[in-house]
Amino acid sequence: MNDDSSQSPDPAADSRRFAPTGPVIGVVGGGQLARMMGPAATELGIELRVLAESQDAGAVPAAASHQVGPGDDLEALRAFAQGLDALTFDHEHVPNAHLEALLADGVVVEPRPHALIHAQDKIVMRRAVERLGLPNPRWAEVSDAEDLVAFADGRWPVILKTPRGGYDGKGVLVVRSEDEVRTGTAAEWFGRAESPLLAEEAVDFARELSAQVARRRSGEQRCWPVVESIQVDGVCDEVISPAPNLAPDEIATAQRIALELSEQLDVTGVMAVELFQTRDGRLLVNELAMRPHNSGHWSMDGAVTGQFEQHLRAVLDLSLGSTEPLAAVAVMKNILGGEQPNLFAGLTQAMSEHPRAKIHLYGKSVKPGRKVGHVNALSRREDPADGSVTAEVRDLASAAAAVVRDGR
Amino acid sequence: MNDDSSQSPDPAADSRRFAPTGPVIGVVGGGQLARMMGPAATELGIELRVLAESQDAGAVPAAASHQVGPGDDLEALRAFAQGLDALTFDHEHVPNAHLEALLADGVVVEPRPHALIHAQDKIVMRRAVERLGLPNPRWAEVSDAEDLVAFADGRWPVILKTPRGGYDGKGVLVVRSEDEVRTGTAAEWFGRAESPLLAEEAVDFARELSAQVARRRSGEQRCWPVVESIQVDGVCDEVISPAPNLAPDEIATAQRIALELSEQLDVTGVMAVELFQTRDGRLLVNELAMRPHNSGHWSMDGAVTGQFEQHLRAVLDLSLGSTEPLAAVAVMKNILGGEQPNLFAGLTQAMSEHPRAKIHLYGKSVKPGRKVGHVNALSRREDPADGSVTAEVRDLASAAAAVVRDGR
Repeated sequence: MNDDSSQSPDPAADSRRFAPTGPVIGVVGGGQLARMMGPAATELGIELRVLAESQDAGAVPAAASHQVGPGDDLEALRAFAQGLDALTFDHEHVPNAHLEALLADGVVVEPRPHALIHAQDKIVMRRAVERLGLPNPRWAEVSDAEDLVAFADGRWPVILKTPRGGYDGKGVLVVRSEDEVRTGTAAEWFGRAESPLLAEEAVDFARELSAQVARRRSGEQRCWPVVESIQVDGVCDEVISPAPNLAPDEIATAQRIALELSEQLDVTGVMAVELFQTRDGRLLVNELAMRPHNSGHWSMDGAVTGQFEQHLRAVLDLSLGSTEPLAAVAVMKNILGGEQPNLFAGLTQAMSEHPRAKIHLYGKSVKPGRKVGHVNALSRREDPADGSVTAEVRDLASAAAAVVRDGR
Repeated sequence: MNDDSSQSPDPAADSRRFAPTGPVIGVVGGGQLARMMGPAATELGIELRVLAESQDAGAVPAAASHQVGPGDDLEALRAFAQGLDALTFDHEHVPNAHLEALLADGVVVEPRPHALIHAQDKIVMRRAVERLGLPNPRWAEVSDAEDLVAFADGRWPVILKTPRGGYDGKGVLVVRSEDEVRTGTAAEWFGRAESPLLAEEAVDFARELSAQVARRRSGEQRCWPVVESIQVDGVCDEVISPAPNLAPDEIATAQRIALELSEQLDVTGVMAVELFQTRDGRLLVNELAMRPHNSGHWSMDGAVTGQFEQHLRAVLDLSLGSTEPLAAVAVMKNILGGEQPNLFAGLTQAMSEHPRAKIHLYGKSVKPGRKVGHVNALSRREDPADGSVTAEVRDLASAAAAVVRDGR
């Protein structure tokens, strides 16, 4: 096995020292991303603490210990940060000013707020991508309906986004005509916005890709294979690793964008760069996530080092693990809540029908459309020109996910 | 990928129903085996509870919850067993009579005491292996020195074992001469024994193998590849999967022994059958372990379904996962405590030098010779006739384990 793409580590940078009882990482937020850090922490002897929204948050049983408290309250954050070797995140909603205060207290915050702001504010992100000469869609800051109409310049639809707080398609609006600018949701957003909104061209994309990278404070970086991400109604539904039929120069371009962004923005931890691949072959930056990301869940079973282990290593400034794939093809299929409230009815059947499926559940109650788990599937066989192996692995992952969801 | 060896499951047997909050498994004992069930439980949405020897037992931070209490106290066991879907074990030291009492209370104990006794009492095991027509070394029950001398019949050395309570070479004595029978440890053992001891021929073995199998109550069974286990001073040191140069008929024989034992003894959960391969090519049963076992740690990173996930599935009577290997060669090397009390000094360096090493730590304080972790390493390349790939993977695992142990 050849090793994967990486930049040379600096052994002298391995200077951090931990107590014999091991490093302690605190995660703000108790969702599935924090939960999936639990197994990786256990394996490496890292103590994982979670600041959870509630006692029944999914990450609580997976963490060594937890506190219940609001992640947007500075005093709760300060109490939680006591004794941590690093503080990191399940989500991007912690106010940046609080993180600056924690830094001033001496807390090791990873990623640091000057980097994290690019995942919190889409206008700040667009400016940075532009400044670095990396490929943005056409965009503008728009303060009112006139600005948006001017941006569209007669070419509808355009995309209107709230710069902050969006996820899984929330905070994103397709505006189809000048009429729609002055009525409905767009008008409402402009009416209550205290700062400009983000307008973007509606990119005519062939598909969406994700380039995931890890970086640690000492500067070492490692990329995973570039994956294809299939969205349904703005929510990630399925991920194929590696992205089928992606040319070597396109892979190199996607990884270079991820490496440049993580280095130039001084990112620490794992970052996913969501990309549009246009019908005319260009790659454009869509969004950034500075934490483990749905498009990287395949790596839990499909790479030597999964994204959750890598994130923990990176935020402790430990050397990064190999991101080499374990299989020729890996597919991740999300399990979104359906009609069946008890996932364990379907789990039994899915295990019986699909012994090769890697089923992951998040310990969350079922609500329609809610991400409650995912299935990974692998094949060691290289995909032939007809794509039959990828098709087979996709079928396996989808079938197993459907059985868990529907609980036959 | 073809699927692995298995017997056909009975879908009708998937009749157990769990609450929407998921199944609950309780593990008696808080050592590394219970700890390593933690990640598998988190991934499948299973709630893992541990009855730990102390608050600082390694499994405590990896479990959803824990009680501190003695695993040999019936009232502590009864309190712990409340609300469990299945009770299982980190070790084999829970008195069988207590388990019978729990069964009578309606607790689901897996494996059940009539099976577990074969891993608790080596004389009971020898009788069963003999009754089933499977290959034992020459053995006898011996009550005193005269019995042992008669068993040896002039061919020294012979092996003397305490039937109960031994592990990692403890409770095993090499007796080299008639003189040694009447003096030292042998005489002491006979003096305090309340029941017969076990005498066995000193098998002239070429190497040790381990055949691991999982079985669930409905009858489904699955074997992993047969591995070679290398012992140092009676303690497992290194495991190579698959066992190099094992002929197809020898693989089939080893797996048949494991399948017959697990079926005929009505084992549930994971069982390791430790085997001697003699210089003249025979396979003989050495010992049984009815729980995840050191010889199966490679499967955590090297098989579609690792032994800890499989054990949880089996004790809940869920369908078993594929045991297909993810790599052509997998090697596990134990980390035994050395001079360096802080494993995290070496962890940093090991990660830097060996990005492909999968390092597992058990959260235990370091004592010389104590099992404190292990390293798994994989290669997707098939081993050529010269064994060079296996040699390379062994070197990687050993080098990484040494750096963690010595903390340069």
